[in-house]
Amino acid sequence: MKNHFNRRKFLQYSGMAGTAALLPGNAISKSEPLFPENEIGLSKFELETPSLCLDLDIMESNLKKVHENLQGTGIGVRPHTKTHKCPAIAKMQMDAGAIGICTAKLSESQVMLENGISEVLMTGVNISSSKIRKAMQLRKRHSGFIQAVDNKQNARDLQDAAKEAGIIADVVVDLDVIRRSGVPTGLPALELAQLVDQLSNLRFKGILAYDGGAQHIKGYQKRLERTVQTFEPVSATYESMIQSGLNVEIFSGAGTGTYNMMGDVPGFTDVQVGSYLFMDTQYMVIGSKGNENLYDDFDPSLTVLATVINNNHPNRLITDSGAKSLSINKPSGMVIGEPGFSYNAGSDEYGTVTFEKANRAYKTGDLLEIIVPHCDPVVNLYDRIYGIRKGKVESILPIMARGHSR
Amino acid sequence: MKNHFNRRKFLQYSGMAGTAALLPGNAISKSEPLFPENEIGLSKFELETPSLCLDLDIMESNLKKVHENLQGTGIGVRPHTKTHKCPAIAKMQMDAGAIGICTAKLSESQVMLENGISEVLMTGVNISSSKIRKAMQLRKRHSGFIQAVDNKQNARDLQDAAKEAGIIADVVVDLDVIRRSGVPTGLPALELAQLVDQLSNLRFKGILAYDGGAQHIKGYQKRLERTVQTFEPVSATYESMIQSGLNVEIFSGAGTGTYNMMGDVPGFTDVQVGSYLFMDTQYMVIGSKGNENLYDDFDPSLTVLATVINNNHPNRLITDSGAKSLSINKPSGMVIGEPGFSYNAGSDEYGTVTFEKANRAYKTGDLLEIIVPHCDPVVNLYDRIYGIRKGKVESILPIMARGHSR
Ligand SMILES: Cc1ncc(COP(=O)(O)O)c(C=O)c1O
Ligand SMILES: Cc1ncc(COP(=O)(O)O)c(C=O)c1O
Repeated sequence: MKNHFNRRKFLQYSGMAGTAALLPGNAISKSEPLFPENEIGLSKFELETPSLCLDLDIMESNLKKVHENLQGTGIGVRPHTKTHKCPAIAKMQMDAGAIGICTAKLSESQVMLENGISEVLMTGVNISSSKIRKAMQLRKRHSGFIQAVDNKQNARDLQDAAKEAGIIADVVVDLDVIRRSGVPTGLPALELAQLVDQLSNLRFKGILAYDGGAQHIKGYQKRLERTVQTFEPVSATYESMIQSGLNVEIFSGAGTGTYNMMGDVPGFTDVQVGSYLFMDTQYMVIGSKGNENLYDDFDPSLTVLATVINNNHPNRLITDSGAKSLSINKPSGMVIGEPGFSYNAGSDEYGTVTFEKANRAYKTGDLLEIIVPHCDPVVNLYDRIYGIRKGKVESILPIMARGHSR
Repeated sequence: MKNHFNRRKFLQYSGMAGTAALLPGNAISKSEPLFPENEIGLSKFELETPSLCLDLDIMESNLKKVHENLQGTGIGVRPHTKTHKCPAIAKMQMDAGAIGICTAKLSESQVMLENGISEVLMTGVNISSSKIRKAMQLRKRHSGFIQAVDNKQNARDLQDAAKEAGIIADVVVDLDVIRRSGVPTGLPALELAQLVDQLSNLRFKGILAYDGGAQHIKGYQKRLERTVQTFEPVSATYESMIQSGLNVEIFSGAGTGTYNMMGDVPGFTDVQVGSYLFMDTQYMVIGSKGNENLYDDFDPSLTVLATVINNNHPNRLITDSGAKSLSINKPSGMVIGEPGFSYNAGSDEYGTVTFEKANRAYKTGDLLEIIVPHCDPVVNLYDRIYGIRKGKVESILPIMARGHSR
């Protein structure tokens, strides 16, 4: 919480808006923080709500499981940190055996690189000339930064900026799998890879092929079929690169929904799993190899704690956590211990729970613990994650790249 | 952007997570900010994207219009600052003639009160004993803080905390209109108001009746009918309070969709308009008194600037602004100048534009300016609003209560 008044910062920010009159003379001395910055040691049920809680035992178990489940496949783990935006968690992932991390945005990449993570692959492209220059400045400071590219002009722009920065930059070619980012597979991808390889200040490192459309398909078999189909043109493109003599050191892709389907893809090096660490209702419903109804490869570790603030109406509870502290993705949040509860976070500041049957009576002040609908956007609403062990706050993890969408 | 590494803060936050090893020896000295903190004077098209932009001329016009449109009705304006979370903007609203502001949460209230706004009505309740104590501490420091209450136990808890703090706290009774917050209208509301009036450390100030369900009803006439209907029991409750001798100084409610429908409600004092200042697609489609198709009482002043990052597919553009920098509310964002564009922000970091006809050809690097789907949750994703005048950055408005959901 940034309740503290910072006079200098505020003046600097407020620009010409004529807000100087806003400054109360002694705001700093008068005000103690109402919300303390350090809740270490508290029971999680003593936290003010809504609060974002992470069960550390479960998270650590997920952290290990992904490596255990991939053992013997030769496939590495390069977790996507867009999910958590915490350098401290990225560090745990590296310590658990990750070969590097992924980031989505340039500002996110900087936060990771400047806070102890040395191997960062940015899966998104930088298009504006200013961002390209910044990316190459970042690469100059941090040799482990790898940048994605998905069109020829962008490759030439990167070349110019790398040359200007006096560096040789590592570049991966992003393949178009879901008509989102990427260069079309086949000849366009091959030609782009060859161009990168030829440009003197770029070093071709490999390819990305993330199939976002496959991750949440319900049913392991259906997901597998789609993945096999998706990877046909991707693999053909990979083969053409190998045959043309390119050094495809990185062949990265997959997410939490398909991480265990890549063993048979020739040359595939690593999975970019993100949600596996936290899980959410969107993933819980897709089913796993051994369980058609519940995806149980990983367990939900992330929850939002909310308070019941109104129980005036039968079969209905109102909480203090709506769209600004949860998310409106479907399926909606699940209240732990109350499978019959339906949680609607459509109001900005209020959650509405409706039910036919509750396991107990709820009064105002009672807490609900909610498994989030989609972990990434929920985390992006908070400044900190409370690391909980055996019900107590063990650590406070600053979400340092929160809001870093640039 | 908080890209800067703050060693002390990080250590303090990271608690026992064992993250000390994370600290690079000279991160601070090595790194200059890639994203400058001060872009005053730049053209808005030079900003890194996604960025949140506010056309100051349009906003100032909206700021005035709400007062002009209410002239002669005797109804005041108490803007809800949940929309913008900026003390600097709240100050502009006060300067334009507001009688005070509203806040939704306690942490939001603190930010406003500690940054120059003296009249703050918190429309949400505080339920936990710790928040109640904090609220009364805040009231002790700031005499203009008014707190909502919606059940008897809560009133007694507030009484205890007010007594402990040695204050007489101003309290309004929130009426149940949309089965969200509030005490049922009629006898329960009257009894609660009487209880508040009797408790020695509370002062009964009046009532709240916000009809969230009416605001976005399409068609002025339909909205009016619903509002008239909603206010029947509310007005009856108000009358019973007056008859019982209570001093109902405040009778507040309404939002941007119904602000001009309250003139005939006896005793009604002020409208809690929030979105009027920024507008969004959800409000644009509801129609106004004079225009069934477009709500034109106020004009859209808030936009997100996004960059086209991929144009590989016909009739499709990919941007760098998805659910983490826009919102997935419906109707979705509108691209200015391209009425035929459909914007899907469902991907966390990517926007997908589809269209049959574009007014021009788009290449990567081109900028799109998007009217946001629902202003409140979008603002809550950013740290700053760029105040734009005639296309240039005139001010940077810190969203000081961003993320303050507690
Ligand atoms: C490029 C890329 N890689 C990896 C991931 C991580 O996927 P998941 O959270 O499904 O594991 C994402 C998530 O959207 C992504 O966009
Ligand atoms: C209690 C209350 N008052 C006022 C408003 C402001 O409404 P609007 O943004 O529709 O003007 C809201 C918005 O949700 C609200 O919850």
